[in-house]
Amino acid sequence: MDVVEVIPTAEQYAYTFGGVAPLLRVSPGTALRVWSDDAFGGVLRKTSDLSSEKVDLRFVNPQTGPFHVEGAEPGDTLALHFVAMEPARDWGASAAIPFFGGLTSTDRVATLQEPLPDTTWIYELDRAAGTVTFAARHSDLEIALPVEPMLGTVGVAPAGGEVRSSLVPERFGGNMDTPQMKPGTTCFLGVNVEGALFSIGDGHYRQGEGEACGTAVEGAMTTTLIVELIKGGAPAWPRLEDDSHWMTVGSSRPLEDAWRISSVELVRWFGELYGLQPMDAYQLLSQTVEAPIANVVDANYSSVVKVRKSLLPRASAYGGLHDDLRRRALTLR
Amino acid sequence: MDVVEVIPTAEQYAYTFGGVAPLLRVSPGTALRVWSDDAFGGVLRKTSDLSSEKVDLRFVNPQTGPFHVEGAEPGDTLALHFVAMEPARDWGASAAIPFFGGLTSTDRVATLQEPLPDTTWIYELDRAAGTVTFAARHSDLEIALPVEPMLGTVGVAPAGGEVRSSLVPERFGGNMDTPQMKPGTTCFLGVNVEGALFSIGDGHYRQGEGEACGTAVEGAMTTTLIVELIKGGAPAWPRLEDDSHWMTVGSSRPLEDAWRISSVELVRWFGELYGLQPMDAYQLLSQTVEAPIANVVDANYSSVVKVRKSLLPRASAYGGLHDDLRRRALTLR
Amino acid sequence: MDVVEVIPTAEQYAYTFGGVAPLLRVSPGTALRVWSDDAFGGVLRKTSDLSSEKVDLRFVNPQTGPFHVEGAEPGDTLALHFVAMEPARDWGASAAIPFFGGLTSTDRVATLQEPLPDTTWIYELDRAAGTVTFAARHSDLEIALPVEPMLGTVGVAPAGGEVRSSLVPERFGGNMDTPQMKPGTTCFLGVNVEGALFSIGDGHYRQGEGEACGTAVEGAMTTTLIVELIKGGAPAWPRLEDDSHWMTVGSSRPLEDAWRISSVELVRWFGELYGLQPMDAYQLLSQTVEAPIANVVDANYSSVVKVRKSLLPRASAYGGLHDDLRRRALTLR
Amino acid sequence: MDVVEVIPTAEQYAYTFGGVAPLLRVSPGTALRVWSDDAFGGVLRKTSDLSSEKVDLRFVNPQTGPFHVEGAEPGDTLALHFVAMEPARDWGASAAIPFFGGLTSTDRVATLQEPLPDTTWIYELDRAAGTVTFAARHSDLEIALPVEPMLGTVGVAPAGGEVRSSLVPERFGGNMDTPQMKPGTTCFLGVNVEGALFSIGDGHYRQGEGEACGTAVEGAMTTTLIVELIKGGAPAWPRLEDDSHWMTVGSSRPLEDAWRISSVELVRWFGELYGLQPMDAYQLLSQTVEAPIANVVDANYSSVVKVRKSLLPRASAYGGLHDDLRRRALTLR
Repeated sequence: MDVVEVIPTAEQYAYTFGGVAPLLRVSPGTALRVWSDDAFGGVLRKTSDLSSEKVDLRFVNPQTGPFHVEGAEPGDTLALHFVAMEPARDWGASAAIPFFGGLTSTDRVATLQEPLPDTTWIYELDRAAGTVTFAARHSDLEIALPVEPMLGTVGVAPAGGEVRSSLVPERFGGNMDTPQMKPGTTCFLGVNVEGALFSIGDGHYRQGEGEACGTAVEGAMTTTLIVELIKGGAPAWPRLEDDSHWMTVGSSRPLEDAWRISSVELVRWFGELYGLQPMDAYQLLSQTVEAPIANVVDANYSSVVKVRKSLLPRASAYGGLHDDLRRRALTLR
Repeated sequence: MDVVEVIPTAEQYAYTFGGVAPLLRVSPGTALRVWSDDAFGGVLRKTSDLSSEKVDLRFVNPQTGPFHVEGAEPGDTLALHFVAMEPARDWGASAAIPFFGGLTSTDRVATLQEPLPDTTWIYELDRAAGTVTFAARHSDLEIALPVEPMLGTVGVAPAGGEVRSSLVPERFGGNMDTPQMKPGTTCFLGVNVEGALFSIGDGHYRQGEGEACGTAVEGAMTTTLIVELIKGGAPAWPRLEDDSHWMTVGSSRPLEDAWRISSVELVRWFGELYGLQPMDAYQLLSQTVEAPIANVVDANYSSVVKVRKSLLPRASAYGGLHDDLRRRALTLR
Repeated sequence: MDVVEVIPTAEQYAYTFGGVAPLLRVSPGTALRVWSDDAFGGVLRKTSDLSSEKVDLRFVNPQTGPFHVEGAEPGDTLALHFVAMEPARDWGASAAIPFFGGLTSTDRVATLQEPLPDTTWIYELDRAAGTVTFAARHSDLEIALPVEPMLGTVGVAPAGGEVRSSLVPERFGGNMDTPQMKPGTTCFLGVNVEGALFSIGDGHYRQGEGEACGTAVEGAMTTTLIVELIKGGAPAWPRLEDDSHWMTVGSSRPLEDAWRISSVELVRWFGELYGLQPMDAYQLLSQTVEAPIANVVDANYSSVVKVRKSLLPRASAYGGLHDDLRRRALTLR
Repeated sequence: MDVVEVIPTAEQYAYTFGGVAPLLRVSPGTALRVWSDDAFGGVLRKTSDLSSEKVDLRFVNPQTGPFHVEGAEPGDTLALHFVAMEPARDWGASAAIPFFGGLTSTDRVATLQEPLPDTTWIYELDRAAGTVTFAARHSDLEIALPVEPMLGTVGVAPAGGEVRSSLVPERFGGNMDTPQMKPGTTCFLGVNVEGALFSIGDGHYRQGEGEACGTAVEGAMTTTLIVELIKGGAPAWPRLEDDSHWMTVGSSRPLEDAWRISSVELVRWFGELYGLQPMDAYQLLSQTVEAPIANVVDANYSSVVKVRKSLLPRASAYGGLHDDLRRRALTLR
């Protein structure tokens, strides 16, 4: 199976979901190898590069795309299977951007306090060891941490003619910033417009759950994925599947509402998977679910809930598409 | 090392943290084997037992205790190391209590809607297999789930003369409902009153993160623990340590505030453990933390953040007490 | 001073802020008399017209506009002075739309409960008396209430290329649903795109603060307004001025964040008006402000804070524009 | 009608609702004239008195009481009618306490930022003019503001054996910090324990809605009130009545939940007053209610909703007790 290489020029990046002409038209079944720049557009390269001087928050999370999927119509389900994510540079960057992040006041959690000090950390990548190294700015501590690549943003064009910044996680996916969006995962998104118009970006060499300081180990990424389309069946909110878990993602504020959304979506999915009446699905989920916070820093906060497949009877979603995509991934060249 | 058995009579249960005379005085270093009744006081025994008829929400989570720890003074740190938790009955119960839980309106998330149907599920315990069985109420589905025992409530008397219901998680611990409160964990709590006056209860044979429906697989429990006291060093919020993780727990509303509390407490702890300046601790935590929601159903919501020790340099807290308690646990008879 | 009449055809309505070509280009200083349809597009005409059958939530709050203001550039301040609002029909409608409103679960405050009953109320207008009549659906009670016309939505195109539904209140104004948006008020909005591209709609014959059930007494409206432009000086969030009050509007979730936003914006404005240092402005505001909730039902919740001018020393904003507009309004024909 | 004078000694203050022995037993119908100290216990007397040095947050809002009301039993309704509130000192104080207030991070809205500068303002009282004077700390601006006395805290002992700090607003009333708690208002509270055990304190010479900086113009107060008891009829949350408005108060976090609580309580009250079915009450309230925020700074946030009586048909609550108390107040000596 062939793979289409996509390396955008600087002018081709999109900064919104919706409102942008397609970069490429692809048929369902296509495999793509996609280069994406880091959240900062690559401008933070040393610790003296400060986000307040070099980053314009209106132009972060540059998206590679959007891709028009042939035949995709509103109400359909787009499936994106992530085969591989490889760091495309030898360093990643993280920053405590003034008035951005979870342990600071922000433009929304507005206070009269001074911002935290604008600080940049650079993580050197050791490809052989598969690590990035945290280097403290105020002491000598250095810690090599495993690379665990993921994508912060995966989304389609919104419904209702809306156009949203690539900082936003919502029903359409977007900047969910969950470490679950990693190689081996299939992401199911409801299609809102003809062609779906999906894009990806915001690669992270690793990220803690919650993305506390507002930024991960941000890095340019080469992502290999397979695009598939299911006619109909659009989920209300993003669903993820990997070999081990059923997962849903909700995004809103306050955080409990993001959690409620993801939980109700999983109750619905359990209904489909196991024929469970909603109260029974609610009960079963209550005793089996894991609930890792995705982010508490973006325009909406995101909550993941997931249940280990091995706890449950065998079931398959969307005609067993995930397993099929796993097999197809092995044939990529 | 001997173990003191504690089996309370029905009249001896406490329903608050604070405001109750000690059940027993213990010296630091004492090992206890404590019987606690389930959250419902054992009254839900079959699916026709409805919480609206049998459960008085003013008297749930019966606490075994409080225990007066000799020498404990405000500002000290109580350490409770959980050695073992064994189901004390052959069944557990769960219920969707009207207007209680996460996917329903409540007395706080107040709406004009009808409640969800009052429903009880009974989980039969198979000791040999180490499972409890979910039995759907509206279909024939049955699923055997592993027993993963934990305690919903572990707390001390609050500060400032307050007395709080055993439904409340707060600075003093209490009804945190985190699956992390399991055998092998050491829980560090700040002491607010002379003797600390800790109590435990609300055993769960298993619970998903978030405790979505408001109740776990609730069950009477026999808990073996070792009580220790550290002079001074009281953490602002509960800290947990097990062999694999450093953990903190925050409890408040909305859920993002619970998360903020736990995260700031972990930044502080990283400062103590690794000599990290706060911005560096914030950054390190951002890239390494796991953030499992504990509960979104209690009087406050609870958030756990935790970092895997194996990611970090070797460090020890409270003079290596956790490791010491693990060793002592092996000597219990 | 002449007034330009604007009566859109059904095809000319906009359902978003941004993303729509201008309906009309106007020069600063222009007076407009604008017809706007009600939030439901006029389809709820009797109590048997149910929102679940007749209303498509993707196409509510039809906007008259957008208007391109000559010379308006990003960073400028658009001033809209509302001279008059006259009911354009003899009835208004209100509805409890399933899973929409403040005392019900919603798509965001997601629960598993049944919706409240889909219910429509029709309010007959008595022009002579200046009242609309509440008629209970489940008893004989009828109450004539004073007409107090206002506009739910007043907004400009968003920044960053975003396009937002006319259900959304944000920095750009939009669906703030505050009863303060009434005749005699001047609304100051930061300009984000060339021409500002403002629109108005969602007339209310009256509305309680909070818009509890999600809809006001919705009615078609004829609004007379004067458009002005201030070069530069764009406020971060909407500011309102009338003869009696300085006001700001914040919109976000949770509601305390909306309040924080409006309060910080008022601290800033007090700094400009009175040369107050922020801590002094914070203190003065703390003892003088009124804080009426605007809405707790829209995509963001909105909070108004306002201070009575008569409590404060004389001051003028934007060169005394509000007073000037009040005078100009008297000359309209 | 005689008035009982109550002037506590320093040792007699209570700092909790519940958990304190009665200061005095009173019969229903008794009039009291009660001295209460300011929130700071009178220790902030000049601008150089800093809260961080002089105020212990565990001992603020000293309560005068509790008063045991003869015959009061759980489920009854306590009515407190406020006849007069007179400043008991010639100055009031306000402070921006570090990490306390609405436009700063706090122990709950936890961030890593520095606190705002600890600042104290002293307001001189001009009894003849009926004003207190704001004096800016960083400029020469002085503004005389009308005295509008109110009580921050009015509460009874909580249910379920809880004891809560006098910083807490809840079902039992407490630190609601609403400017509606002023002379001419009758406050209805559900009784939770024998004797009700109510107390009052935290006098404010004036306060803006929201109590943005965390403190009002705090002042010692002499409050004249009449105590009445209604057998049964305990409201779920505090209800207020004055000559012009029906009001309810909800307290929780996030702020929208406080609003939901107060709104549902008002729907209930409208049902009692006008025989309205809940959906009709919801609709009527939606079009008539005012929703002034009470506080966004305390342990819970408080929301008031209120409807002007003149908009509604004549109705009376609790047998017309408010009107009766207004008449009785005229006979006090």
